[in-house]
Amino acid sequence: MGSRERIVSSARHLFATQGFHQTPMSELAVAAGVSVGQIYRLFTGKNAVIQAIVMEDAAAKMGELQTMNDSVKSERFSIEEGFVELARRALSKGDEALSFEIMAEAHRNADVADTIADLCRDFRRMIRELACVANPDLQENELEGAEELILAFMFGLGHRTLSRPRLSEDETARLTGRMILAAVRAL
Amino acid sequence: MGSRERIVSSARHLFATQGFHQTPMSELAVAAGVSVGQIYRLFTGKNAVIQAIVMEDAAAKMGELQTMNDSVKSERFSIEEGFVELARRALSKGDEALSFEIMAEAHRNADVADTIADLCRDFRRMIRELACVANPDLQENELEGAEELILAFMFGLGHRTLSRPRLSEDETARLTGRMILAAVRAL
Repeated sequence: MGSRERIVSSARHLFATQGFHQTPMSELAVAAGVSVGQIYRLFTGKNAVIQAIVMEDAAAKMGELQTMNDSVKSERFSIEEGFVELARRALSKGDEALSFEIMAEAHRNADVADTIADLCRDFRRMIRELACVANPDLQENELEGAEELILAFMFGLGHRTLSRPRLSEDETARLTGRMILAAVRAL
Repeated sequence: MGSRERIVSSARHLFATQGFHQTPMSELAVAAGVSVGQIYRLFTGKNAVIQAIVMEDAAAKMGELQTMNDSVKSERFSIEEGFVELARRALSKGDEALSFEIMAEAHRNADVADTIADLCRDFRRMIRELACVANPDLQENELEGAEELILAFMFGLGHRTLSRPRLSEDETARLTGRMILAAVRAL
């Protein structure tokens, strides 16, 4: 791993376990095996490290989603399989503690909020494509409603650990994927 | 307001705007107009203040939900109206920044996590009651699936600000409530 990758990887761990503000740059430098000066040569500050984490996770998620959307459009996956896969991707999202830490920070920091909003825009576009396949007759405001439902559902599935669910991830994906399809077709 | 209420109310504001760990007890004392010693006579520590906030919000939310469930059971509300109201309550939830801050802390602190898990148990029970009204034929694992879907959906709706939605709260509640009903009936 290069210095940049080591810094981002150490930051993930430290921000998640002790929080963003409780992690001094000096500690991050030690954990990543670089000097503080080196961090500042690669990042404008701690916020830029958070932005890098957000972008890295988003790129991975978008790539998965795009592949999945393509599979549905090319009919390699049925639309129901598409929604089941969507649920599965939401369930397997990364570190929830880090995610909450980043979103708390986004409410205090406009740059982080803008980065997340940009990513959500791409994400909404992909969800909308799936909703259109599921129900090609949706009007504009209905499409927006479907977008809100699916986005909310995926966000919640990816952050459900604290609610201590009993149902396995597989079963959850299978059942909720089927339900989401019915929901989008009901409009 | 009594001292306890002033401490909790000031803590809400400070924890949300600057974070839990970045708020020293001394600052909380000044904001609440009490001494640090007085805080420690009423709360075992900062965590206990967070627990108080979580319990206060949960009690309000559970009360609303119970009233709503009763309205559906007594057929004053149709089940569709019930789900629309459920969505509306999720949308109008309180301070998202504070919520993220609390959940980040819950991932570091078992007491906070346990409090949230207890509340989710009650919450799941009420959601399950609604799902049973919507579809009395659900098998146990299907009920669990419906519970996961609705819980995830409500959590996501209550934390959607960063995704910059365009649809109004009213329209979102109306459309997604209808979709959730169809989803639960599709199993």
